Amino acid sequence: MKDPVRVYGVGTSAYGKQPHLSSSALASAAVTEAFEASGVERVDAAFVGTVFGASGVAQRALGPLGIVDIPIVTVENACASGTTAFHEACSAVAFGRYEHVLALGVEHMSTLFAGPIVPEETDSEGATGLAMPAMYAMAANRYRAVHGLTDEQMAWVAVKNYRHALGNPRAQRSGDFTVEEVLNSRMIADPLTVLQCSPISDGAAAAVVGPPRAGFSDVAVRTTSLGSGSLWDHRSSHVWSFELIQRVAGAALDEAGVDLADIDVLEVHDAFTIGEIVTTEAIGMAEEGGGGALAASGFTSLGGAQPVNPSGGLLGRGHPLGATGLAQIAEVVWQLQGRAGTRQVDDARLGLVETMGGGAAGVDGNACVVAVLEGST
Amino acid sequence: MKDPVRVYGVGTSAYGKQPHLSSSALASAAVTEAFEASGVERVDAAFVGTVFGASGVAQRALGPLGIVDIPIVTVENACASGTTAFHEACSAVAFGRYEHVLALGVEHMSTLFAGPIVPEETDSEGATGLAMPAMYAMAANRYRAVHGLTDEQMAWVAVKNYRHALGNPRAQRSGDFTVEEVLNSRMIADPLTVLQCSPISDGAAAAVVGPPRAGFSDVAVRTTSLGSGSLWDHRSSHVWSFELIQRVAGAALDEAGVDLADIDVLEVHDAFTIGEIVTTEAIGMAEEGGGGALAASGFTSLGGAQPVNPSGGLLGRGHPLGATGLAQIAEVVWQLQGRAGTRQVDDARLGLVETMGGGAAGVDGNACVVAVLEGST
Repeated sequence: MKDPVRVYGVGTSAYGKQPHLSSSALASAAVTEAFEASGVERVDAAFVGTVFGASGVAQRALGPLGIVDIPIVTVENACASGTTAFHEACSAVAFGRYEHVLALGVEHMSTLFAGPIVPEETDSEGATGLAMPAMYAMAANRYRAVHGLTDEQMAWVAVKNYRHALGNPRAQRSGDFTVEEVLNSRMIADPLTVLQCSPISDGAAAAVVGPPRAGFSDVAVRTTSLGSGSLWDHRSSHVWSFELIQRVAGAALDEAGVDLADIDVLEVHDAFTIGEIVTTEAIGMAEEGGGGALAASGFTSLGGAQPVNPSGGLLGRGHPLGATGLAQIAEVVWQLQGRAGTRQVDDARLGLVETMGGGAAGVDGNACVVAVLEGST
Repeated sequence: MKDPVRVYGVGTSAYGKQPHLSSSALASAAVTEAFEASGVERVDAAFVGTVFGASGVAQRALGPLGIVDIPIVTVENACASGTTAFHEACSAVAFGRYEHVLALGVEHMSTLFAGPIVPEETDSEGATGLAMPAMYAMAANRYRAVHGLTDEQMAWVAVKNYRHALGNPRAQRSGDFTVEEVLNSRMIADPLTVLQCSPISDGAAAAVVGPPRAGFSDVAVRTTSLGSGSLWDHRSSHVWSFELIQRVAGAALDEAGVDLADIDVLEVHDAFTIGEIVTTEAIGMAEEGGGGALAASGFTSLGGAQPVNPSGGLLGRGHPLGATGLAQIAEVVWQLQGRAGTRQVDDARLGLVETMGGGAAGVDGNACVVAVLEGST
């Protein structure tokens, strides 16, 4: 970052299928909580992440809260839309463009999707009818063929994240599932069972960012990094998005001057179990092919060396696309503030957020955003 | 602007119903022309405006051109999405965030809309079935009741802009229509006939921006300003968006240190004839109630004192939503470079672009962007 940036406060709605609540109602809950936590009365601009939200969704959500007149820009980067909004907000503060900025993510999916999200017909994948679970299933099978991942290792990601979600009262899906229960749940796209797929979700999350301020122990944004994918070679031995995550996470850690080993808590993109496995490898927590064993070992569980997705992740907390990135930011901020309740990671000082967006467009991913945050304790 | 910004080059596709061409093909034409005109080989980031483009539309368009790896952010602000992309690109250069930035706008509407665009059902307007022409028609009738605008004055905007479009080989709709022909064309929403409504269009437009460079006579961005609307009071004697345009245009001219009287050429938001009338008043070219007489007087025609929409505007050039703002920028840049062919405004040195987006969300408008550009001659 050029100049230092702080997160003043965060807020979220609950997550889940909430067809009776509008996007505006969900956003209102998140923004109101973020403002109350931040101690500021107004912001100079707002960046709003949404994927399927209609034109004007940001203005409809913010207007009734009195957030009008200021520049409002809606941003979209598939599942990374929320962290893109956060990245744009932090960059605007870091470069002196605005002082106080609101980043909001919001998505209302339950009224749009009865089944899985299907890529656009203009994608080669969409044209062949490949819905998202099918694409991840192909990645999982490719990965298993190369690395010998077992079904049980993959299921451990889900077991872990639903257990984590038990400590998160806003989570959509939680439980003390066994590996067998995960594997025996309804098959969606072989080898991915329904408990290995993040649920259709409605929700919102928000953060207020600004420069350092005296008298507050705000969470510091050590860096945020955003990259878009390279052209994707389907003959690659890597599954989709590996190189992009590796590149962006590496750049973020370099820029922050932080060793991965010093990160105390992570929220990463586990839209499907295979996603967390590939992501932890791409970030460097395990060797290639070692992500499944890592999850099964307890290393990434609450109480382990480097807990991943203490909120429950996308699997447990839920995955309202445009809100997800800011939901991850909110969780890590709460962790670094010591306000994460029964899911608190002990002595958490450094946190990392990673969100992957897209990848069905002939590139290695529409975007990946990685943020490194530091608590003041 | 904090630090000076230049437009290195612009490019556009043709405009019109082009269902045989994909978004990517349209974007490719615009971006290729903009790069050729700019003399740079690569950019450090891209902001892409689209309203209805699917997630990944930017990456699908840019990937095949080799524009990968860099940060790509899709932005949306209804009809002002293209100028929002331009504003974000210029701001990133002005604040030293990136050196060279691509702003792209792209929209493919002919495959989505057989009739008019209808606001979302979550808008009060959408819930009552009000399509965009109906909303503008209500504004026109309200305006006529207050100010006594005649049908003939309103039709003059269309007559002027279709005549202007005769000089624009990329325009969608042009002709030497009479006032009577405009008024006798098919009624869409009383008093707006079809020739008073901008057409459904497919197209793309792009600009490459960066800091000043030696040896080039690039067009200077004196300022860009982006604002979002206030809560809308339907009892106001102003029609929708007047205050927002007035506020943002005033701020842009102030910031640029430019008097409106010194502006040589304007491209403004004439999605419907009443739009240009209200906009020219809000900018300050006419008193309230005087915009119709202004258009009928020839003041805003090519050859007049301050030509408005020499490209044909949204009515003539076409209105591919997310592309429109950058299509306006491209036109003014060409005018300031003396490259506008038979529609060239003599000795054009200062130009103004105004785009309004939305307004069906309980606010005075989702966003308005105004840019002031200056040629180097």
